Amino acid sequence: MVMTRKKVSVIGAGFTGATTAFLIAQKELADVVLVDIPQLESPTQGKALDMLEASPVEGFDSNITGTSDYADTSGSDIVVITAGIARKPGMSRDDLVTTNQKIMKSVTREIVKHSPDCTIIVLTNPVDAMTYTVFKESGLPKSRVIGQSGVLDSARFRTFVAQELNVSIKDVTGFVLGGHGDDMVPLVRYSYAGGIPLETLISKERLQEIVERTRKGGGEIVNLLGNGSAYYAPAASLVEMTAAILKDQRRILPSIAYLEGEYGYEGIYLGVPTILGKNGIEKVIELQLTNEEKSELDKSADSVKNVMNVLV
Amino acid sequence: MVMTRKKVSVIGAGFTGATTAFLIAQKELADVVLVDIPQLESPTQGKALDMLEASPVEGFDSNITGTSDYADTSGSDIVVITAGIARKPGMSRDDLVTTNQKIMKSVTREIVKHSPDCTIIVLTNPVDAMTYTVFKESGLPKSRVIGQSGVLDSARFRTFVAQELNVSIKDVTGFVLGGHGDDMVPLVRYSYAGGIPLETLISKERLQEIVERTRKGGGEIVNLLGNGSAYYAPAASLVEMTAAILKDQRRILPSIAYLEGEYGYEGIYLGVPTILGKNGIEKVIELQLTNEEKSELDKSADSVKNVMNVLV
Amino acid sequence: MVMTRKKVSVIGAGFTGATTAFLIAQKELADVVLVDIPQLESPTQGKALDMLEASPVEGFDSNITGTSDYADTSGSDIVVITAGIARKPGMSRDDLVTTNQKIMKSVTREIVKHSPDCTIIVLTNPVDAMTYTVFKESGLPKSRVIGQSGVLDSARFRTFVAQELNVSIKDVTGFVLGGHGDDMVPLVRYSYAGGIPLETLISKERLQEIVERTRKGGGEIVNLLGNGSAYYAPAASLVEMTAAILKDQRRILPSIAYLEGEYGYEGIYLGVPTILGKNGIEKVIELQLTNEEKSELDKSADSVKNVMNVLV
Amino acid sequence: MVMTRKKVSVIGAGFTGATTAFLIAQKELADVVLVDIPQLESPTQGKALDMLEASPVEGFDSNITGTSDYADTSGSDIVVITAGIARKPGMSRDDLVTTNQKIMKSVTREIVKHSPDCTIIVLTNPVDAMTYTVFKESGLPKSRVIGQSGVLDSARFRTFVAQELNVSIKDVTGFVLGGHGDDMVPLVRYSYAGGIPLETLISKERLQEIVERTRKGGGEIVNLLGNGSAYYAPAASLVEMTAAILKDQRRILPSIAYLEGEYGYEGIYLGVPTILGKNGIEKVIELQLTNEEKSELDKSADSVKNVMNVLV
Repeated sequence: MVMTRKKVSVIGAGFTGATTAFLIAQKELADVVLVDIPQLESPTQGKALDMLEASPVEGFDSNITGTSDYADTSGSDIVVITAGIARKPGMSRDDLVTTNQKIMKSVTREIVKHSPDCTIIVLTNPVDAMTYTVFKESGLPKSRVIGQSGVLDSARFRTFVAQELNVSIKDVTGFVLGGHGDDMVPLVRYSYAGGIPLETLISKERLQEIVERTRKGGGEIVNLLGNGSAYYAPAASLVEMTAAILKDQRRILPSIAYLEGEYGYEGIYLGVPTILGKNGIEKVIELQLTNEEKSELDKSADSVKNVMNVLV
Repeated sequence: MVMTRKKVSVIGAGFTGATTAFLIAQKELADVVLVDIPQLESPTQGKALDMLEASPVEGFDSNITGTSDYADTSGSDIVVITAGIARKPGMSRDDLVTTNQKIMKSVTREIVKHSPDCTIIVLTNPVDAMTYTVFKESGLPKSRVIGQSGVLDSARFRTFVAQELNVSIKDVTGFVLGGHGDDMVPLVRYSYAGGIPLETLISKERLQEIVERTRKGGGEIVNLLGNGSAYYAPAASLVEMTAAILKDQRRILPSIAYLEGEYGYEGIYLGVPTILGKNGIEKVIELQLTNEEKSELDKSADSVKNVMNVLV
Repeated sequence: MVMTRKKVSVIGAGFTGATTAFLIAQKELADVVLVDIPQLESPTQGKALDMLEASPVEGFDSNITGTSDYADTSGSDIVVITAGIARKPGMSRDDLVTTNQKIMKSVTREIVKHSPDCTIIVLTNPVDAMTYTVFKESGLPKSRVIGQSGVLDSARFRTFVAQELNVSIKDVTGFVLGGHGDDMVPLVRYSYAGGIPLETLISKERLQEIVERTRKGGGEIVNLLGNGSAYYAPAASLVEMTAAILKDQRRILPSIAYLEGEYGYEGIYLGVPTILGKNGIEKVIELQLTNEEKSELDKSADSVKNVMNVLV
Repeated sequence: MVMTRKKVSVIGAGFTGATTAFLIAQKELADVVLVDIPQLESPTQGKALDMLEASPVEGFDSNITGTSDYADTSGSDIVVITAGIARKPGMSRDDLVTTNQKIMKSVTREIVKHSPDCTIIVLTNPVDAMTYTVFKESGLPKSRVIGQSGVLDSARFRTFVAQELNVSIKDVTGFVLGGHGDDMVPLVRYSYAGGIPLETLISKERLQEIVERTRKGGGEIVNLLGNGSAYYAPAASLVEMTAAILKDQRRILPSIAYLEGEYGYEGIYLGVPTILGKNGIEKVIELQLTNEEKSELDKSADSVKNVMNVLV
């Protein structure tokens, strides 16, 4: 019984990556290696050192290192990918896809070279296609390559509902299927406050507004910030998935999972309810959907396929 | 017995201010109002909303709002000032002082107008002179205007010692007097690992190197980042002081306190050991210093006075 | 803005009372005064001191004192009543009721004498009638006298469901109406795993078994222990309600609340969903019930009335 | 990289054992198996189930089981021994020693049979001799058999000092060498408040009173309780040592360690400062002692040897 400390590597030391690294260390979930490209090695080290210097005050005993050398990620239990570019004004969607695909491929090769048994969680957009890219490139089993979007989408939904009802966020649950953003399928009938269906607490119209605001939740932050995008809630979402796997909690969380027949889809990554435990995705949970819900999910799956067609 | 939620306002929504706001909310210490200038109101709101959207995942029930309107800070228990400019290449020290002094004055007027009974914690550099400025402008008792530097400096010192000895940061304590940075007076003989004096565990030469690295700890991060300065450890330090006061913990922490005779100084703000509780600085602790330590502290006090002479 | 520490008094220093005191202190929710009768003052002080001596290791800065003098409870924000006798073999239910009623009356007089503005949470059985007794004796508004049973009952239900499904307890919610124990009305259709209705995940028969086990959950522990009854889960439940009020979290939790027309009942205390915040019960939430559920709730209400008839 | 959950077994389901189990589970340090003799299997299961039923409210995902079958402890990372009898009125010390020695031997055989690579932490009194017994019986390396006393003794010392100075327990450190209780050697000159030597803050006489109270700290609780002994602070102490090892924190904590030449002693277990990490005791730290301190430690070592002479 050799007790080793867990190790998580976070690829991409931008705001989301750095915040993810900090939260993992702060909770003493694992030692953290923060990785970025060689040109950014110095600031990556600076961020890691700054975080480490917070440890005596915050009281956590996790190591945090910044690097551009993937050898430092060796033996990671989990690798979180936040690397990639954001869509800039004037950039076509296809350019975004192919650029980030290239980044995913190169990053994935390095990851599996040094951590052949790790679990990978992907945040990079468009997240369904990027998770697929990582899956294919990694050669890892599908249970070990997972995309994040539903935890974040439902966190936003829950925030808006808690504000609407003026109740604790601890008692509001939300449920999201399908793709990220516009293609999100929020299952309002599976969402509750204190166990009470939201449909009996909030008017249909107001609920629809909340759903719409959730769908555009990423854009709302982008617009407010003016320059940049959300990172606190995305990082917290990545950390919740990481904790579920590292601690084998068997959480029921929405993940972007590889489907082979589930929900009637074949060979695509799509947001579905899953059980996350020590093996990554331990199970995809199949829900009974109404016709309307299924048709929305089909639309979401079509969007994913459209993006996948752009992949080289 | 009306139980009200605590309220903390953080002035300045840059990286340190935002991280401070997030940590206070995350720990459910208080509701947080993040404030910046009207031109930055939108990104300030964006940051606050992003943090709030992390709350269902992180599990905290604190409200976070972003604003440029000081009316929103009304009734704050504590106000943390992180606003101000950083020294830019080519800028004289005196320009930095007078610019930040102007900011402190205007910010302070707004703070006390809306929270006449608050406690103010200042981070803005040069922190001794800026805390003095806030003190004078606020009309608050000296116990309620406090500067931060020693918690951060000793956090860095503790980090380096824990690394050197390869032991838990939980068991390393450090002790710093005097000004921030170069004028810091680290009392090595009051610093321990597991209660054991560091001087018996680490060679004199190596300890001196660690002291020097601590003195230049802020610069080390600035150099690594290339663009910007530390914010994780500074924010954590502000939060520890905030918690000590909000929870009336009577922590023994180094603070920049207004001295009226203590340690032989009159009418200056200087870093000394204090007890922090519900009234802010409950007590300044006076230590017996060696001649050498006293002479180093004198140098530090002289530096502070030099900067104070620049104040308008 | 004077920041005072919160204060909670726990009446009854048996296992549940002591565990409640420890958890409140451990979480730094408040300073705690543990109270028992004069004959037990010494062991009460012993327990409080033992807990306090755990504080440097657990890292909490809460004071804990043991006493038999109600003057020490003066100015409590919340008072938790765990005092009272348990039903012994051969004791009639009516004897239990009248004995505990007498205890409640005497305890309540002392409480309100020293903390006229407190909120009281009652655990003593039969809890509906005892909460009513405290309410009448205290003269406090109904929002400030609250009984505990549903948080515990649903915690047991959630535990059994999480075991059945082998998933995280974090993702299982449960919902209980009505009285404690046999009169409990578990609303299975308002109970979920990861937002998915339990009825679609567990067979009807198995669910019914789980409901029955929950109903007899207190007895199961009594039988296993042989001598004594549950105290960890009851204490944790009291602490969750205490935290919701102290921190004004506006949690949606089941409480034993005084009904004046809600659900068609008048002048009785019954377990219903409530919002708990700084004013105690901020709201009773009225659910649409099926005929079957309403008839079960009627039965539960009848039981409560039967016990109330025994009250002197 | 297979991520398995950690496992801790606690032998002895009395108050200390049960509280230890609860705290380990509550902090999600490990799954816990609580073990007692077959005649107490049912109440042991009752306690474990009661704790588990607190998990949805406390929010922890740790399994807790009660058993009398050591097969259930199989593959434990750490085993904590709290089993044994307490000295009863009229019982000679030698009877206590031989009875508990017998228990230790039988318990240890079962432990190592099912967890041949575990680390064992012993609490049973007289703890030095009992730890030695477990060491000899187990065949485990000395680094993996550790006794607890100094963490508890210094927790009590720290509590009394924090009360005396009216400061946060977070800032008071204490340091204890030697045996438990009367033979304790508190190194006052290695104890601080906020890094400031206690000798400069508290009068010599008052400090001596605090030392005496600490020495008799166990007895103080026994006297107050009237029936039973301390368990909150002992349990918290066991948990801190457990966490240090499970998380490889390399904490500097006092442990009862097997000495082979350190401090001039050979072949006895004695309380000394150690580094606790994934290998158990990673290092015994040797301090420079004054003549007076060394002579007190000699006395403590003699006491240990006297008890060891009673061992069969």
